[in-house]
Amino acid sequence: MGYSEAVLKFESFLERKLALDSALALIFWDQSTGAPKGGAAARAKTVGILSGESFAMSVSDEMKEHLNNLSKYEAEFDEKVAAMYRICKKDYESMEKIPKDEFAAYSELLSGAEVIWEEAKEKNNYLLFAPVLSQIIEYLKKFLGYRGFTGHPYNTLLDDYEPGLNVTDADAFFAEIKESLAPLLKKITESGKKINADFTKTTVPVEIQQKIADFLMEEMGFDFNRGMIKTSEHPFTNGTGRTDVRITTHYYENSFLSSLYSVLHETGHAIYEQNTDEALAGTILDSGISMGIHESQSRFYENIIGRSSAFWENIHEKLLTILPDEFKNISARDFYLAANIVKPSLIRIEADELTYTLHILIRYEMEKYIFSNDVDVYELPALWNKKYEEYMGIKPQSDSEGILQDVHWASGLFGYFPSYSLGNAYAAQIAYCMNKDFDVNSAIRSGDYAKIKQWLTDKIHKHASVLLPAEIIHKLSGEELNAKYFTDYCYKKFTEIYEI
Amino acid sequence: MGYSEAVLKFESFLERKLALDSALALIFWDQSTGAPKGGAAARAKTVGILSGESFAMSVSDEMKEHLNNLSKYEAEFDEKVAAMYRICKKDYESMEKIPKDEFAAYSELLSGAEVIWEEAKEKNNYLLFAPVLSQIIEYLKKFLGYRGFTGHPYNTLLDDYEPGLNVTDADAFFAEIKESLAPLLKKITESGKKINADFTKTTVPVEIQQKIADFLMEEMGFDFNRGMIKTSEHPFTNGTGRTDVRITTHYYENSFLSSLYSVLHETGHAIYEQNTDEALAGTILDSGISMGIHESQSRFYENIIGRSSAFWENIHEKLLTILPDEFKNISARDFYLAANIVKPSLIRIEADELTYTLHILIRYEMEKYIFSNDVDVYELPALWNKKYEEYMGIKPQSDSEGILQDVHWASGLFGYFPSYSLGNAYAAQIAYCMNKDFDVNSAIRSGDYAKIKQWLTDKIHKHASVLLPAEIIHKLSGEELNAKYFTDYCYKKFTEIYEI
Repeated sequence: MGYSEAVLKFESFLERKLALDSALALIFWDQSTGAPKGGAAARAKTVGILSGESFAMSVSDEMKEHLNNLSKYEAEFDEKVAAMYRICKKDYESMEKIPKDEFAAYSELLSGAEVIWEEAKEKNNYLLFAPVLSQIIEYLKKFLGYRGFTGHPYNTLLDDYEPGLNVTDADAFFAEIKESLAPLLKKITESGKKINADFTKTTVPVEIQQKIADFLMEEMGFDFNRGMIKTSEHPFTNGTGRTDVRITTHYYENSFLSSLYSVLHETGHAIYEQNTDEALAGTILDSGISMGIHESQSRFYENIIGRSSAFWENIHEKLLTILPDEFKNISARDFYLAANIVKPSLIRIEADELTYTLHILIRYEMEKYIFSNDVDVYELPALWNKKYEEYMGIKPQSDSEGILQDVHWASGLFGYFPSYSLGNAYAAQIAYCMNKDFDVNSAIRSGDYAKIKQWLTDKIHKHASVLLPAEIIHKLSGEELNAKYFTDYCYKKFTEIYEI
Repeated sequence: MGYSEAVLKFESFLERKLALDSALALIFWDQSTGAPKGGAAARAKTVGILSGESFAMSVSDEMKEHLNNLSKYEAEFDEKVAAMYRICKKDYESMEKIPKDEFAAYSELLSGAEVIWEEAKEKNNYLLFAPVLSQIIEYLKKFLGYRGFTGHPYNTLLDDYEPGLNVTDADAFFAEIKESLAPLLKKITESGKKINADFTKTTVPVEIQQKIADFLMEEMGFDFNRGMIKTSEHPFTNGTGRTDVRITTHYYENSFLSSLYSVLHETGHAIYEQNTDEALAGTILDSGISMGIHESQSRFYENIIGRSSAFWENIHEKLLTILPDEFKNISARDFYLAANIVKPSLIRIEADELTYTLHILIRYEMEKYIFSNDVDVYELPALWNKKYEEYMGIKPQSDSEGILQDVHWASGLFGYFPSYSLGNAYAAQIAYCMNKDFDVNSAIRSGDYAKIKQWLTDKIHKHASVLLPAEIIHKLSGEELNAKYFTDYCYKKFTEIYEI
């Protein structure tokens, strides 16, 4: 078989996988945005069968054959084929070494774990969850044994979610975060400055919040011809290629900023997905490259844009025409300050921009210990609480508001948390570079979001899954990921706000 | 392989097909109820791949093997296995005789035909559509040659949509319709009686019409835990098994009866799908048996219930509390009469209960001629117009309001139209039988829709795809389908309304 034929066959094979994955994404979207509850079991069955097929394709003999056929032509690969080959080979190799029966047993364990975690959280009893968590960790360690790792075992898991990331780099990254932001937080806490946020609790009817969402999405450049917004319990972005990217939000009548920032966050994810290179449409490359880069885009829109003073100056007037009359005396500065209150808290998903990264730091350190066998599952809650006290100065009073708060570990997601922090750091580094080309705050202040979107598209979005995270960041900044941009950003912003 | 093992393997094979079909149904639902337009091409690709796989399963060697394995045990089949075997065998045998390349060419022809039909309809130019229609018919005739037929070639097509139906029975059926209803229509037209329907054009805001829809669905016994309603261009029911059955409607502000009757119609389809035997959940049997029986249920709710005097007496008071004040002087009798205006018209989908069947009669006769080679494609418009004049006393002034009005033929759906009329006739026969057990109008008048639903479930719904249409009708009525019940129903109803 010649090169062209091998590529064509490979692409057509992957199109079938893409069709299954697109159907699965739609089922998930439907399930989360109002599908009849009674149909859950039937949908679970459909998902089980179709996701099983999609997964089976990744580790099938047919996949192996495609990879073998292509391997002869590596020298001829263009960027696109190289990326498809890289992604499929990585998936294939990481899975084919794991005995099928062990993976099936692990999958079954996971399918029941979330319910156990939920119960443990509800009953505030970590001991209910510990046995299953222990089993999940044991499986993952065993799989790491099969899959192999270089250096630290946790490296392989980090690389699963952020290709190229390893403990050495992550250690350096989080060390910078810890050394810089923990003291900053302390100063803020000690400053005693109180910011007024009472007005953010004013009732804003859902219809008005919907108008705000539409307005912001429109402003940011979300393409409604290739996307839509609905509501769900937890906000998320659901993309099946650049022509159909959907987001959700959740409206709370007495906390309109919650949805406002959710919408900006998900719009950032969505704009990434909508602006990939058109030539990649219909391929497995037509999606963001990693969790970290994805989160950089959501955080860029949520924080770099949405939590800037320039943003509030830009949208203030228009927003007042949408908001109820009670807001008419609230200035742009008032909104800006209220959107940037820093306060150590126990719950990650409610955290502000600064303390969020400390929440992740704690999870990173704990996961690293877990996979270097430095901590026992039953010791995790005490370690968790100790770290919260050390980095944030507060201590969980229960496991529900401590170690049981996140579902991730019950889903087997170890190595995933760090990407949230990378997102913040990438975003700051990206903003720094963008500022070399034009004054970002001026663009925001004048509502020229199109200019920002175009820059992000040229430097990031269009590459979809072709370039690796490190390649993207290096290409746009001339250096590796550097936490300094994020810590500088935090210092500059919060010393001004808190007058410290 | 033993019997039990053969059945288990067969069922598991079919579960995979069901998963694909469920995903396809959801994609269709999504596409019709608000999916981003820009994603249409990507969705079409997904649909192409998944529907291709589902279809390939029907005619696969694996299917053949399952059927062969099972065939040894026919004597041991229970009702459920017998029905699954019957359905799959019929699909397999009807398709396996058609050369794959010819079927692929036909599918490609169809995929472009709808656009051509649309253009022809828009430009009111049948000649644009005639060549492709001619090709479609030629393919179907060729396929009939491969598939074989007993008696009339059209028999095989009739049987595709209404298992067991043939030209002999359909001729008798439509003869009764023609002899009885054409004269009745003439009398009505000549009676000169005018019914006031001006009030039905009063503006009713969409939110109010939504309330009416919810109210009616609730009354009829639609289970909202296992279903939902949304809007689409054309109303339809979308079921993926008894636990998830969805309907749509279309609201016209100045024609609230349009959606009211659409909702009753689709609710009838949905209640059928929601009330199949629970033991059939998750199998290919968990759906209505045929187009005709399905239409009997939609027409039962739309016409037998919804266009009865008893219905209006029952809902009148409640409806007035929902409707705008302009309706406060409209009596139950006014609503009843306005909902039952008989008027010959050119467009099938706008037809009343009586003339609807005449529209179908015309299509039936024409399709029969086409497949007995008694008419050339280019002669069809003249034939169409002649029949409208003969049976309805009106003549299309253009092909757009004549032969080009329906999409069915462009989709290759020949043999499909008659099932609409069977639906009306089955519904009348079912109502006649139900009346032997209890007074249907009394049940309606007192709002005891649960009693009606339970009767329909016992006699029809629960059988899902297990019993054939003729078996269902014979079991509940002790005789075959008999058009007399429908013509009697029409005579009784319309002679009273039109005082003739």
